[in-house]
Amino acid sequence: MEMEDDGRDVEHMGKEEDRIIISSRSSSGGLTLREPLLVKNNNRLNTTSQVAIVGANVCQIESLDYEIVENDLFKQDRRLGAKAEIVQYAILKWTFALLIGLGTGLVAFFNNIGVENIAGFKLLLTNHLMLDHKYHQAFALYAGCNMVLAIAAAALCAYVAPAAAGSGIPEVKAYLNGVDAPSILAPPTLFVKIFGSIFGVAAGFVVGKEGPMVHTGACIGNLLGQGGSKKYGLTWKGFRYFKNDRDRRDLITCGAAAGVAGAFRAPVGGVLFALEEAASWWRSALMWRTFFTTAVVAVVLRGFMEYCKGGICGLFGEGGLIMFDVNSVKPAYSIPDLLVVIFLGVIGGLLGSLYNYLVDKVLRTYNIINEKGPIFKIILVMIISFLTSCCSFGVPWLSKCIPCPPHVGDQCPTVGHSGHYKNFQCPPNHYNDLASLFFTTNDDAIRNLFIAGSHKRFQLSSLLIFFVAIYFLGIITYGIAIPSGLFIPVILAGASYGRVAGSLLSPFTVLDVGLFALLGAASFLGGTMRMTVSLCVILLELTNNLLMLPLVMLVLLISKSVADCFNKGVYDQIVEMKGLPYLEVHAEPYMRHLVAGDVVSGPLFTFSGIEKVGNIVHTLKVTRHNGFPVIDEPPFLEAPELCGLVLRSHLLVILKHKAFTTRPNERSLIMNKLRAHDFGKPGSGKGIRLDDLKISEEEMEMYVDMHHITNKSSYTVVETMSLAKTAVLFRELGLRHLLVVPKTSGRPPIVGILTRHDFMSEHILGLYPHCNSRK
Amino acid sequence: MEMEDDGRDVEHMGKEEDRIIISSRSSSGGLTLREPLLVKNNNRLNTTSQVAIVGANVCQIESLDYEIVENDLFKQDRRLGAKAEIVQYAILKWTFALLIGLGTGLVAFFNNIGVENIAGFKLLLTNHLMLDHKYHQAFALYAGCNMVLAIAAAALCAYVAPAAAGSGIPEVKAYLNGVDAPSILAPPTLFVKIFGSIFGVAAGFVVGKEGPMVHTGACIGNLLGQGGSKKYGLTWKGFRYFKNDRDRRDLITCGAAAGVAGAFRAPVGGVLFALEEAASWWRSALMWRTFFTTAVVAVVLRGFMEYCKGGICGLFGEGGLIMFDVNSVKPAYSIPDLLVVIFLGVIGGLLGSLYNYLVDKVLRTYNIINEKGPIFKIILVMIISFLTSCCSFGVPWLSKCIPCPPHVGDQCPTVGHSGHYKNFQCPPNHYNDLASLFFTTNDDAIRNLFIAGSHKRFQLSSLLIFFVAIYFLGIITYGIAIPSGLFIPVILAGASYGRVAGSLLSPFTVLDVGLFALLGAASFLGGTMRMTVSLCVILLELTNNLLMLPLVMLVLLISKSVADCFNKGVYDQIVEMKGLPYLEVHAEPYMRHLVAGDVVSGPLFTFSGIEKVGNIVHTLKVTRHNGFPVIDEPPFLEAPELCGLVLRSHLLVILKHKAFTTRPNERSLIMNKLRAHDFGKPGSGKGIRLDDLKISEEEMEMYVDMHHITNKSSYTVVETMSLAKTAVLFRELGLRHLLVVPKTSGRPPIVGILTRHDFMSEHILGLYPHCNSRK
Repeated sequence: MEMEDDGRDVEHMGKEEDRIIISSRSSSGGLTLREPLLVKNNNRLNTTSQVAIVGANVCQIESLDYEIVENDLFKQDRRLGAKAEIVQYAILKWTFALLIGLGTGLVAFFNNIGVENIAGFKLLLTNHLMLDHKYHQAFALYAGCNMVLAIAAAALCAYVAPAAAGSGIPEVKAYLNGVDAPSILAPPTLFVKIFGSIFGVAAGFVVGKEGPMVHTGACIGNLLGQGGSKKYGLTWKGFRYFKNDRDRRDLITCGAAAGVAGAFRAPVGGVLFALEEAASWWRSALMWRTFFTTAVVAVVLRGFMEYCKGGICGLFGEGGLIMFDVNSVKPAYSIPDLLVVIFLGVIGGLLGSLYNYLVDKVLRTYNIINEKGPIFKIILVMIISFLTSCCSFGVPWLSKCIPCPPHVGDQCPTVGHSGHYKNFQCPPNHYNDLASLFFTTNDDAIRNLFIAGSHKRFQLSSLLIFFVAIYFLGIITYGIAIPSGLFIPVILAGASYGRVAGSLLSPFTVLDVGLFALLGAASFLGGTMRMTVSLCVILLELTNNLLMLPLVMLVLLISKSVADCFNKGVYDQIVEMKGLPYLEVHAEPYMRHLVAGDVVSGPLFTFSGIEKVGNIVHTLKVTRHNGFPVIDEPPFLEAPELCGLVLRSHLLVILKHKAFTTRPNERSLIMNKLRAHDFGKPGSGKGIRLDDLKISEEEMEMYVDMHHITNKSSYTVVETMSLAKTAVLFRELGLRHLLVVPKTSGRPPIVGILTRHDFMSEHILGLYPHCNSRK
Repeated sequence: MEMEDDGRDVEHMGKEEDRIIISSRSSSGGLTLREPLLVKNNNRLNTTSQVAIVGANVCQIESLDYEIVENDLFKQDRRLGAKAEIVQYAILKWTFALLIGLGTGLVAFFNNIGVENIAGFKLLLTNHLMLDHKYHQAFALYAGCNMVLAIAAAALCAYVAPAAAGSGIPEVKAYLNGVDAPSILAPPTLFVKIFGSIFGVAAGFVVGKEGPMVHTGACIGNLLGQGGSKKYGLTWKGFRYFKNDRDRRDLITCGAAAGVAGAFRAPVGGVLFALEEAASWWRSALMWRTFFTTAVVAVVLRGFMEYCKGGICGLFGEGGLIMFDVNSVKPAYSIPDLLVVIFLGVIGGLLGSLYNYLVDKVLRTYNIINEKGPIFKIILVMIISFLTSCCSFGVPWLSKCIPCPPHVGDQCPTVGHSGHYKNFQCPPNHYNDLASLFFTTNDDAIRNLFIAGSHKRFQLSSLLIFFVAIYFLGIITYGIAIPSGLFIPVILAGASYGRVAGSLLSPFTVLDVGLFALLGAASFLGGTMRMTVSLCVILLELTNNLLMLPLVMLVLLISKSVADCFNKGVYDQIVEMKGLPYLEVHAEPYMRHLVAGDVVSGPLFTFSGIEKVGNIVHTLKVTRHNGFPVIDEPPFLEAPELCGLVLRSHLLVILKHKAFTTRPNERSLIMNKLRAHDFGKPGSGKGIRLDDLKISEEEMEMYVDMHHITNKSSYTVVETMSLAKTAVLFRELGLRHLLVVPKTSGRPPIVGILTRHDFMSEHILGLYPHCNSRK
């Protein structure tokens, strides 16, 4: 009930509460056909809702509405709208894009500085103890530091913003599809995401900062679209342009792109990521704006890194932002090499889909633990942290010490925090190859794996051990209550797999092992994320060598195709597991055999063109519907006629401003009293609450002329329209409500309203279980 | 009439012919309201049509239909459709993508081989004469070769396939928006495009091969979607999957991407070009397929170039495919450099929009000349060819001879056909810098302009002369009857502009002149084409240096923003000038003040659910409409009821197969006799002709049960729906027909049909001229 209270329009996945059949208050005749239909549907629906609830662990999900409400006020506003307003809007749009870019760039830089300094300091201290052969103290220090950082991250996630746990990409993806999970983009989430990610990555977990960066970018975008804040005096009428879901969607798309651009320093990759993976609606104009945002991120990051070159950023040094060193490799390949690459792609696809399968299983288990309470969340994080520490510190002991190669540019063994040759327990002039991978930050480990032209740097056994360990560590780490990206674990596992494969296959191919590591990473990414163009471009921007493009493309296409035979992409899997009602591009085949009227579920609440205030208040109280059809009725017209759709939020504004008339046929003052922007969608938690409104008994007997606030251009379908095409219409236009009108005249002018919920497989297959077999 | 005869459904821009008011043959009552409306609209429409015709010089334009016709046959087919069919379709889809990639790659390579050899041989001969100081003979030879090649290209264009003239990108763009201009993708066009482009580029015109490559790719895609050929025995039932506009659209999108990939060796750029500029509808699945196609192109090109390294491709050598040599530049920049870059972008944007303006003016003039007949086209080409020859041969005399720099890797002066230091009229050990730009192929000139780190290679005066000459030569060349891309002229002008600016601004900046050339080219491309991400990626793929990404992005954004203040992008301008009814993403502001019913234009032809064959034949004869509403009427029902929409092409199939019944209430055999794929859209020029059908007098009295072939899920809007939202619906769903239904009951169940034509500004503003002022 709390969501309804703050005046926002809420949709429950399981809509039982509002399935009370109350007789529609009007329309003298013509209801004969509808009533039984409603009852029938309603009975069916109860089972459906249960199905939906079992699949869902998020309860309060709000649909977003990308439709332009073309009511009289809107038209008046357009007519009055001076050219100055259009210019102002354009300037603001671009300013916001700039701000998102600046913000995300700053966060990305801050994140890197933080991680590199914390993790670097931790490793430095441990290293000193190791050099003095104080191995037990070293482990205690290492594991202790990790544990403290892990607890910090977990506590933030568990107590401040639970929505900040995990990657965040699935939630952003769902938001951009039109599903708003509660507080997923709220300021506390942003705060926890930034700091939780720093602590989590610094704690040595096998997690990345890429997913959290995308989420961070989206949060920044959302923050700008909130329309300022009265509390902090940040109010300005310019903000009103963004008080709708359409413009917020654009800001969040820009934010998601900026996140990827910041995490990988890959501006074009960021745009493509937003386009290919994140966004459900796209248009050319948005591409341009997104591109601008990512360009700003790139420039900001570059500027800061130039600034840090002087060594004033602590242990930051060169690193942090991955940039693979395979530039020196000149890929020259022939047919046998291509066969090897195809083989690599097939195995990568198989392992990638297995990764998804295992992540799904682990996540479901963790969800059960996490639901028990914050303290359980923290304990789980502590266990995984201890396991990771043991692995990082213990496994390198399995490796033999290798004498340093005579002529290398780098120091060997490395004394500082970052470098290719880790000393660990080895005597001077020797290095431990497993420690170079385990006992370092993830970014450094990736950089080490990608080093070209040195077959013998890592022993095959070490690489194999690392691959197996990191593959499973990655799987058991995702899902614990810290902000955790999936890119880095997958790249780590993929690169070590590639390097193993490169070592094993070296008799058959002339390709470099560093290149193999890149191709292995590509195959794993393709196998788990199932993106193509954006991953390809991200990898290219990381390696800065376009000559290997054809090989990367090939391996991505193969691994994606192979993995697609087994399961969905990892993000889609998580969206589904979270029970977010995601609308797919394509309609399911069984939808072709149903019509729109088949899935309409009642009861239907309608309003008259001139409605009593009391009726409005009562209806808003007893239902949680967000859209109500307005029907002009006798005696004003000969036959009832559909006028359009009115939104709950708009009615609340009318009630708040008391734009009432005493008699039904009096001229309404709505058009004089209010402007279109008074109806803008408020920011999160700032809407009008129905309970706060004081409406006297006298006012309850007054009237509202609904015509001015009714969207007369609401999209409609005839009840006999095939459900598949209805779904395409709903998805393509980004609707929240779709009116279903009857096929024949002589019946009431509306059959029902379709919402996102009605297009979900659970709902439809609940109503028509026999469709499932056909599926 | 000829287009109607071959059974295809034709829409005229000026629809006068079918504006004969005949009384709708049925619906006893309820027509009272519609008839006067029709007459009114019709009167108005005549003026509109004239407006449309003035703007259009293409007369016969066909709309494409991306809607899935969900009639009973389709549903039956889906029900019967085995899993094997789905697999077969998927395999075919990918095979076709592979074939498009292979084909386009092959053509790109062939084009390069051809141009380099023909132009190289021409320049080699001329050079020999120059060395012997036989300047007049040299000019005669040079101009003569150019003239012969130009005439060959022009003759092909003028006599074989006039649609092959020009860039082709605007036409492909229009096709992908749903507008099929006649023979724009036909096999003769493909043939002329390939050879005309080789001759045109080799003739020394300031034209590129990029636009023609895109068109070529699209033609190859279209060819594959034609469903085989009975004439050549290429029939296979698998082809039936592609006998619809949706699948053909996908193939052509892949082809367009492959074209860019082939022209620039930029696979990612190709995908982005298709996405940003070419395609009007997009989905993630298509991205993947397009990406595969461009990857194939890249691999094919790479393979061929490896093969040519042995020197067995004649004068092909290294070149042909541009690859700029700015890799050595390490861009390091500070604030003043950024200011310089911004300045560069602003001026580039201004010059770019001026370019568009002038191209438009020149094109309109040329159109008048070209319409006079093929011989005029050829004469125009000859004049421009002579002018270009004079310029290329004459202008280098203005330049002073420069002594060769002492230590350069290249030969100086160059003796071969391709090289940086052209001797021209100079004594030994000297070179003519203008000749290095003018007296060479366009690709070589671009490569010369992009050379880094050599301020003094070109004199400032030479660069200025070159810039002015190439700017105007580019403008007067586009529009003559040869296949001519716009990318190369714009890159040439932009790069020389950039180098001029770099020389002038060198006191204020540390950036290299080669980098300036790149930024100049970017600014011009942004100013004319108005693409952003795709241009950026193409330039990156050409330069193979990601470090200059932020600067390129910046300059593109600025030049596009500046140019957008003045006019449209060059391709949009050409689409508009050709009168192709392109649907924009955004509705015009005045459309918000109109409703769907306002623009419906009659007369409306409808059919009954059970219709007499004679009526069908008569209606198909007297009108050119392509969709007809089907209305179930008394005595079968109580009140008339809209059943759906039936297509002309489907009716022709029924007439051909004589699926008639002798009595109206007899069970129809359509479902037994025919399958959904019998109704597939035939390839160009292969449809059923109404006149070829022999229907006896007896058959004329028989009946057709329309229900099985009626699309019962046709999209509808209520007549009061705002026109803006109707336009969005029409565009987003890729419709050809949109049914407008009445708001109130008691009227006939359909008000009219909206087609693409009804959303064009000319039509709407013709009906409501007062909207224009509001615009």
